[in-house]
Amino acid sequence: MNETTGAGSGSTKPVVTGSQFADGIAHQLQTLLSAGNYDAVKILLDPVQPVDIADAIGFLPRTLQALAFRLLRKDEAIEVYEYLDPPVQQSLLDKLRSSEVLELVEEMSPDDRVHLFDELPAKVVRRLLAQLSASERTVTAQLLGYEQETAGRLMTTEFIDLKEFHSAAQALSIVRRRATETETIYSLYVTDAERHLTGILSLRDLVTAAPEDCIGDVMTRDVVNVRTDTDQEEVARAIQRYDFLAVPVVDREQRLVGIVTVDDVIDVIEQEATRDIYAAGAVQAGDEDDYFQSNLFIVARRRVVWLAVLVVANAFTTQVIAMNDVVLQQVVLLAAFIPLLIGTGGNVGAQSSTVVIRGLSTQRIQALGPMKAVFREAIAGALLGLLMLLFVVPFAWWRGEGPLVGAAVGISLLAITTLAATAGAALPLLFDKMGLDPALMSAPFITTATDVAGVLIYLRTASWLLVHIHGFSA
Amino acid sequence: MNETTGAGSGSTKPVVTGSQFADGIAHQLQTLLSAGNYDAVKILLDPVQPVDIADAIGFLPRTLQALAFRLLRKDEAIEVYEYLDPPVQQSLLDKLRSSEVLELVEEMSPDDRVHLFDELPAKVVRRLLAQLSASERTVTAQLLGYEQETAGRLMTTEFIDLKEFHSAAQALSIVRRRATETETIYSLYVTDAERHLTGILSLRDLVTAAPEDCIGDVMTRDVVNVRTDTDQEEVARAIQRYDFLAVPVVDREQRLVGIVTVDDVIDVIEQEATRDIYAAGAVQAGDEDDYFQSNLFIVARRRVVWLAVLVVANAFTTQVIAMNDVVLQQVVLLAAFIPLLIGTGGNVGAQSSTVVIRGLSTQRIQALGPMKAVFREAIAGALLGLLMLLFVVPFAWWRGEGPLVGAAVGISLLAITTLAATAGAALPLLFDKMGLDPALMSAPFITTATDVAGVLIYLRTASWLLVHIHGFSA
Repeated sequence: MNETTGAGSGSTKPVVTGSQFADGIAHQLQTLLSAGNYDAVKILLDPVQPVDIADAIGFLPRTLQALAFRLLRKDEAIEVYEYLDPPVQQSLLDKLRSSEVLELVEEMSPDDRVHLFDELPAKVVRRLLAQLSASERTVTAQLLGYEQETAGRLMTTEFIDLKEFHSAAQALSIVRRRATETETIYSLYVTDAERHLTGILSLRDLVTAAPEDCIGDVMTRDVVNVRTDTDQEEVARAIQRYDFLAVPVVDREQRLVGIVTVDDVIDVIEQEATRDIYAAGAVQAGDEDDYFQSNLFIVARRRVVWLAVLVVANAFTTQVIAMNDVVLQQVVLLAAFIPLLIGTGGNVGAQSSTVVIRGLSTQRIQALGPMKAVFREAIAGALLGLLMLLFVVPFAWWRGEGPLVGAAVGISLLAITTLAATAGAALPLLFDKMGLDPALMSAPFITTATDVAGVLIYLRTASWLLVHIHGFSA
Repeated sequence: MNETTGAGSGSTKPVVTGSQFADGIAHQLQTLLSAGNYDAVKILLDPVQPVDIADAIGFLPRTLQALAFRLLRKDEAIEVYEYLDPPVQQSLLDKLRSSEVLELVEEMSPDDRVHLFDELPAKVVRRLLAQLSASERTVTAQLLGYEQETAGRLMTTEFIDLKEFHSAAQALSIVRRRATETETIYSLYVTDAERHLTGILSLRDLVTAAPEDCIGDVMTRDVVNVRTDTDQEEVARAIQRYDFLAVPVVDREQRLVGIVTVDDVIDVIEQEATRDIYAAGAVQAGDEDDYFQSNLFIVARRRVVWLAVLVVANAFTTQVIAMNDVVLQQVVLLAAFIPLLIGTGGNVGAQSSTVVIRGLSTQRIQALGPMKAVFREAIAGALLGLLMLLFVVPFAWWRGEGPLVGAAVGISLLAITTLAATAGAALPLLFDKMGLDPALMSAPFITTATDVAGVLIYLRTASWLLVHIHGFSA
């Protein structure tokens, strides 16, 4: 990031990224606060973006956080507070006077306030709710009533609504009047007497309209909207797909109750990507945001579930090997290739499932058709197996000290890669059809299917070769 | 998604998501086009969003695509064209008359035009460039000159720049005049005579200012900007962090040359997430966008490289087992637990590296400090190992037919999980420090380290127990 203080001074700050920049500010801030040089603090923070100030306050020792926070201009303090991490928000609530707390919570945007209340103990939330003004209390209670991760929870109730009979000039003066208190003024909504959403227009449409034009004629009646119970991921997809700055949220009676803005949606997209990535890495999805702050026992508890499931999956492989120990007793070097075979199966399966799961998330697989996707992956798996035979078989022949191990490894490698690719593609699609999250559910099943079948094919092939070619009785 | 045609008709279309909706439209479109009912096509498409029209045209047979495209209003046609998939864009270029092509390419936004030119054969690009008007040619050639995946490639050159001496009223009339031709009018930029960026203001600031206010007084001088060579991921981070709708792009002399808007940045965030997810699944990053359209041999070639690297990694494990075959000859059931042990090691390593790699992407790990992160993961690995001992050791004792296998499995399990978590956390951080992409580089090294060390610890422990407890000579 390159922060410039503009032409006035002509100076440019060094290129730094956000949180490192905040780290630097935090050090200066701490020095100045400890020295009691509060005017210098104000000068230091004046050109800094609210999110960077929030990060810098987060880096300060707890004892200095309230002090730094009190030095901010009031309007800036609210914005900075909304960017603070939940633990810092909570500790500030304890340190500030109750009149300061009330003013802060009253002035926050409704969606950020609900986000804060989600993190606070129920007792504190009840007390704060009781102290809020009637209008803010109603809005907050309403938002808290929607399910987590829905449009209702994500939306803000601060938007500008116009009427069809307004002239462009009237509308513009409404926008001017309400500009400071609403989250966005760039998307404007038109409602009828019963508050049903009848159209939208952008501020761009409004400023280019003639002053006497009627809003009903300028607006677009084709409105893409979501419902209060629409999943946040679908809300994000809508804004991303249509390149919107905001999307209106309606209730079951098509009444406009709020809007979701693009900045909140970016966070949702990142959160959903983190969830998919964690699922691929066998880390349980949950509060990804605060992983780096959570207790190690909580971390271990969250991960051990998946590990235990995968151990059970692996226990089947153990069973299969133990039940085929006769052939291993004859040719112990066969055991040396088990990790290579099931490792390769796992990797091929992971490639296929990664592509299919991501394709489901980005809705690309729906366009191709699921059957075709599985078929493609099966062929790809067979191709990959054939390519790998070229160097795996000579290695197995040499290291396995003879053609028996080479042949068993080669035959089973081809079977395993084909099977792994097919299972890797088909299982996520199956889980998706069953309404389960493919990113979360597929891994242990793919692993088990590939490992168990792979080891079985390998040891049975070796056993067959041993009996029919070498004449052993196994 | 819920498309409503508004209160006028009172009807609401069924709730459908984007591409399925487009699929439905495509069927109606094809029927109407085949029947030659062009007026009905216009009525059908009128309330549909451009991106949905683009998808619907993409679903049509090639022969009907140009026909459908010609029925669009001219301003809409350009927007729809920008949303089409590259193969459809190219096939349309072949089908349309050259005057139509030229008009289309001339009217596209510069950033979308560059995106198209990236996909077209060089010969076609040269011909089209030569036919463009001088001003559009200059802009396009300039954008094509920036590196792929930088701010320069992502930006548009269509923005509104004001001067400090303008009054708010003058500025508003400039905005009105240029509103239709610029990509956004909500972020406004202020430059001096040499085109240096000196400040920014939002349209919100402008409409709330008094008409006689001077822009130099209304604007903010603290500008967050990026350079033409800033990586696209960093551009995305800046917009996401600061909740911007657009970020200005300057050249080395701090002259304003373009802006990157939030809608382009959402696509970058998704693309980067796909890349991370693919890397985690051992799929080579590349043209993720068109995976589902690419040839299977290309797919196989792209994946086999990683598989080969991982096979080589596995070959080390094979070596270790083969070199310790004496102990396996004595207790062949030891082999049955190798998949379980290295599988668990792999899973624990994957969990740690997933969390650390994602933490690097979202810049959370920098706040915690790398040493602390590795230490946390090592402890977490040991904890996880201890938890799993509780059920793995009894299973190994029973299935391994005695305490020897149970003890060897238990001791090595604890060592493996600790080691895997440490390597899983440390290697991505090390690669990041070395300037390599941790998401791409870490997997084979973590696998190799965990598998080789795990098998070695397991078989040496078993061998030691055999000699010292059971009195065998191994």
